[in-house]
Amino acid sequence: MHTVLRSKTGVEALIGSDLPFVVIGERINPTGRKALAAEMLAGNFERVKADALAQVAAGAPVLDVNAGLGVANAHELEPEVIVKAVEAVQSVVDVPLSIDSSIVAALRAGLRAAGGKPLINSVTGESERMEAVFPLVAEYHCAVIVISNDETGISYDPQVRFEVAKRIVKRAESYGIPREDLLIDPLVMPAGAVRGSGGAVLDIVRWVREELGCNTVCGASNVSFGLPNREAINANFLAMLIAAGMPSAITNPLKPELKTAILAADMLMGHDEDCMRWLRYQRQLAREAAAAAAAASGEAAPAADDRAARRAARRETKE
Amino acid sequence: MHTVLRSKTGVEALIGSDLPFVVIGERINPTGRKALAAEMLAGNFERVKADALAQVAAGAPVLDVNAGLGVANAHELEPEVIVKAVEAVQSVVDVPLSIDSSIVAALRAGLRAAGGKPLINSVTGESERMEAVFPLVAEYHCAVIVISNDETGISYDPQVRFEVAKRIVKRAESYGIPREDLLIDPLVMPAGAVRGSGGAVLDIVRWVREELGCNTVCGASNVSFGLPNREAINANFLAMLIAAGMPSAITNPLKPELKTAILAADMLMGHDEDCMRWLRYQRQLAREAAAAAAAASGEAAPAADDRAARRAARRETKE
Repeated sequence: MHTVLRSKTGVEALIGSDLPFVVIGERINPTGRKALAAEMLAGNFERVKADALAQVAAGAPVLDVNAGLGVANAHELEPEVIVKAVEAVQSVVDVPLSIDSSIVAALRAGLRAAGGKPLINSVTGESERMEAVFPLVAEYHCAVIVISNDETGISYDPQVRFEVAKRIVKRAESYGIPREDLLIDPLVMPAGAVRGSGGAVLDIVRWVREELGCNTVCGASNVSFGLPNREAINANFLAMLIAAGMPSAITNPLKPELKTAILAADMLMGHDEDCMRWLRYQRQLAREAAAAAAAASGEAAPAADDRAARRAARRETKE
Repeated sequence: MHTVLRSKTGVEALIGSDLPFVVIGERINPTGRKALAAEMLAGNFERVKADALAQVAAGAPVLDVNAGLGVANAHELEPEVIVKAVEAVQSVVDVPLSIDSSIVAALRAGLRAAGGKPLINSVTGESERMEAVFPLVAEYHCAVIVISNDETGISYDPQVRFEVAKRIVKRAESYGIPREDLLIDPLVMPAGAVRGSGGAVLDIVRWVREELGCNTVCGASNVSFGLPNREAINANFLAMLIAAGMPSAITNPLKPELKTAILAADMLMGHDEDCMRWLRYQRQLAREAAAAAAAASGEAAPAADDRAARRAARRETKE
């Protein structure tokens, strides 16, 4: 089953466990980025545009747009700011968007600005949230991230989280929303606090795929919260999620360790024809290394088709 | 189900998908190591001892011992050489051993020298091999690696390889060998040549676990044959194998990327109580980095309890 997202002009992103992994770029989010929040509030969207360009260049086929400014009058301001952010992104890249807000008016404004078939980030199993968000999903025929917690909180027990996901899927269907438009987030808990929380997520991913036929998504980096060498944990966790059949995650496409893990796992699962994406990325790294070496030794930076870079790439291939 | 291996003096290594991943150290193997082969032939086992010490220090709970010298009269020489190699290893470390040979007389000599409960590496589904090796397994009450190919060769189809494994397990049982003493090797094929060969192995691992109740093992590095950046591919593949429930692999414990992947995956699966092994390894890396930095800046190398190293470890933890 494929979840289809679409940009305003019709560019599609397909999400499915038989396809290359889809990174939903997380960078356009002022939470914890004070400079970005101040700029967005002042109507300056240059950093938003730069983040959009960089993430798409790094291979993100979908971008999350969050305009949560963390101010008292967010309910009034956020719908307007998210529209400007969406328009800024669309002025530089043409990819499907994920409209990310807890304010329903901002979701509606963002969906309208986005056009095409965006993704809503997100709805939980709390009745109030479902009653507010599902009508929007049905009206705009968009897709939505479903987070597997409800009024009782987040259970440590993966079975309970799966049951919550099942109930939310049923409720969504009562609004006429098809299962392929639901991306289930099994909720990743920190492995430092909840022993085996990574394995629990792998179980839920498999159950959701086999019993509900839905695709899944997550914010993978929460798993390493509080632990040293977070990038290494997150990268290996992404490979494990791909092995279990998770087709997408909200993460930072600019982190090289994550990119390496995703491309390696995609290739190992057979989602990279002739290993072309892996080979291209390794050649890119070899070119960059050769350019850095040349710069360090005082030579001019090599041209794109430079022989040294090719030699380095060939050496790597033979290794 | 746990596969139990035992050293001569009774030190145990337990293999099971609910336990920390077991690396069977692959370094003591003269194949492709000409200097080592020449030394072993000349009766010099110093490098064998050094390899044993280094691999156990790096965390390998089991060591493979191979004495395949690649000479014409191997059948005559190998039984004697493998005994000397086993004795050399036992003179410096006390871990269970994997006796690795295609020559039955060498297997028998190695088993006798090893004592305890070693592992035989390996038997295939070829009738002649099974008839030669299974009686040894039964006689010595040891464990054995079972490779899922037969007279017809190695199938690209994971279903066929699983069927071969099933037949071998049945045949082993006719010799009175219990399932927990069989480690099934699903045969890892290069992903560059066989599209999706990684995913195929994950399927076989799950089927073997769920339908046969056996543990699995593999030589993971074959998956990256012919591709650039092999370490990264192998490391991510190990994390994916652990996610699928593979409890052991024959690999090089000295490669830092592999160690990181294994420790991260163990922790994420809940096989690392209080994340202690992950934290200890990160502290070790921080200490080494601090020592290297101190050495580079001309200071004396810091003591084991050096404050800078502790600060570095703490900084990492808070990150």
